[in-house]
Amino acid sequence: MPAASLNRFRRNFAGRKVLVTGGLGFIGSNLTRTLVGLGARVTIIDCLIPEYGGNARNIAGLERDVVVHIADVRDQRRLPGFIRNQDFLFNLAGQTSHMDSMTDPDTDLEINCRAQLSILEACRLHNPAVRIVFASTRQIYGRPDYLPVNEAHPLRPVDVNGINKLAGEMYHLLYSRVHGVRSTVLRLTNTIGPRMRVKDARQTFIGVWIRNALEGRPFQVWGGEQRRDFTYVDDAVEAFLVASVRRQAEGGVFNLGGVGHMSLRELADLLVLVCGPARARYESRAFPRSRKSIDIGDFYADGRLIRQVLGWAPKTGVQKALTRTCLLYTSPSPRD
Amino acid sequence: MPAASLNRFRRNFAGRKVLVTGGLGFIGSNLTRTLVGLGARVTIIDCLIPEYGGNARNIAGLERDVVVHIADVRDQRRLPGFIRNQDFLFNLAGQTSHMDSMTDPDTDLEINCRAQLSILEACRLHNPAVRIVFASTRQIYGRPDYLPVNEAHPLRPVDVNGINKLAGEMYHLLYSRVHGVRSTVLRLTNTIGPRMRVKDARQTFIGVWIRNALEGRPFQVWGGEQRRDFTYVDDAVEAFLVASVRRQAEGGVFNLGGVGHMSLRELADLLVLVCGPARARYESRAFPRSRKSIDIGDFYADGRLIRQVLGWAPKTGVQKALTRTCLLYTSPSPRD
Repeated sequence: MPAASLNRFRRNFAGRKVLVTGGLGFIGSNLTRTLVGLGARVTIIDCLIPEYGGNARNIAGLERDVVVHIADVRDQRRLPGFIRNQDFLFNLAGQTSHMDSMTDPDTDLEINCRAQLSILEACRLHNPAVRIVFASTRQIYGRPDYLPVNEAHPLRPVDVNGINKLAGEMYHLLYSRVHGVRSTVLRLTNTIGPRMRVKDARQTFIGVWIRNALEGRPFQVWGGEQRRDFTYVDDAVEAFLVASVRRQAEGGVFNLGGVGHMSLRELADLLVLVCGPARARYESRAFPRSRKSIDIGDFYADGRLIRQVLGWAPKTGVQKALTRTCLLYTSPSPRD
Repeated sequence: MPAASLNRFRRNFAGRKVLVTGGLGFIGSNLTRTLVGLGARVTIIDCLIPEYGGNARNIAGLERDVVVHIADVRDQRRLPGFIRNQDFLFNLAGQTSHMDSMTDPDTDLEINCRAQLSILEACRLHNPAVRIVFASTRQIYGRPDYLPVNEAHPLRPVDVNGINKLAGEMYHLLYSRVHGVRSTVLRLTNTIGPRMRVKDARQTFIGVWIRNALEGRPFQVWGGEQRRDFTYVDDAVEAFLVASVRRQAEGGVFNLGGVGHMSLRELADLLVLVCGPARARYESRAFPRSRKSIDIGDFYADGRLIRQVLGWAPKTGVQKALTRTCLLYTSPSPRD
């Protein structure tokens, strides 16, 4: 069931057809759960590549309410069939690992650039009235010139993933402006919450931290001085909904920020507090040289634009977000 | 023979191995002619796609001095063989038509993104010491916020071509910074001179203007109020050479501007003057609606950065540039 505050979206989504790419992933599956709760008819495309965020268990209990296609957004020929007749398209499929994008840039390009262009072409040709929200990333800014980073900040991505995600969001804005395929771009910062990938650091380092903390192994904090902001996934889901239904969002780009910001060491301390110091502890390590070249230093987003234009702001602080996340993985049944 | 002013580059290029992608095209062939004159051992890759700028006649007379591979930069497997052992790589292969990029975005992406990443991967793996200069475009800025446009101007490309060229230049800068594959990006504005494509407007509208003017047919001026700057191709060639040999250029991005700027109507009047009003005339038309959505309005570049850092500035005014261009197409033998 969606949170009470989301019930206002029922009239927008009840009975409507919604496609979620990457819908078995972390944010996609949380969004799908909310949409189903609002009465939407949800179709998911997810390729379930083991290294990515998709996991069939993320929609456990909803198997009868959601149509799931195990399909790859790179499979251009299948896209028109998926996209035709949808009212909304939440476009979250992506390759997210910065390190993988540097060792295998071609795959990152295929998913984050070419597939995006194919999706948009399919919309233009087969469903120009669809309403799209695209999940972009703070990574496109690169190392900040100033903090907090607003949407006017120069775009200087520091890795192949950032470059390709930037192209991906620019295609969306272009198709909105030139072809009338109404799109909104949300630039996500670190997002945390239930169903995040905790197996490794491909989606976010926080996933591994949580897993190790819960399993009683020390987690590693690299550097620790860097400041970051964090969005709780329910807040992010609300932002996707707002962006998809408000006319003012069409053709726009908005940062999603968090409630405040903190150093990674402060985050680590908070995680130890949440999991209990008896179980959780961490080790501090120097920041690895191999990652230095694609590191962005401190980052936190200026979230004023989306508050002013769409009335959205994050509500959930980091401690509550971590508590709820850990709860899912420690409760006997991994359901909401 | 290169102009006397370019003889200073002889020590940099005599006997050196140089690869020019798009070397049968407009700027590529002029660059090749200069490099051969300086004693370089030039290899060209060009796919000779009829719609693009490549034309075997552009290197007429040099057939014995240059190795030409009719090959496509999209053919990933052949790239290592071409790139291995080169001292310099002038990377000019590209899809240049803005309109074509909108009707066939996938091809533009394959050439301007994926092939660029493949070229850089081939350099990283097989020739990390090569020195690269990449031909980018003013198109990546989109509609200017201010004039003249300097390198710090926001990047907001208005068509698929601009988005993909932006990704292309970002890959080059990334490989320079992270992998040590030394690259320089030059952002070209309208370039004019002998061997430009005059068959149609795929490379630049000025090509069609010149052809019609020389053949006694009226050429069409759309709008006419827009201001532009123009670089003469010999000046552009000099910029490529400077950028390739100066250490200060490594990892840098530089605008190439022109000597002053003028409205398209003033340019048309100048072309009539150069070709003779008895032969040349033009018709004014309203700017077509179909192109309005990807039009950038006025544009002229701020060329101070490259002057300060590399000591390069354009020397040739537009009238002289047009005169020399028309001369090539009217002289009995199409040779320099």
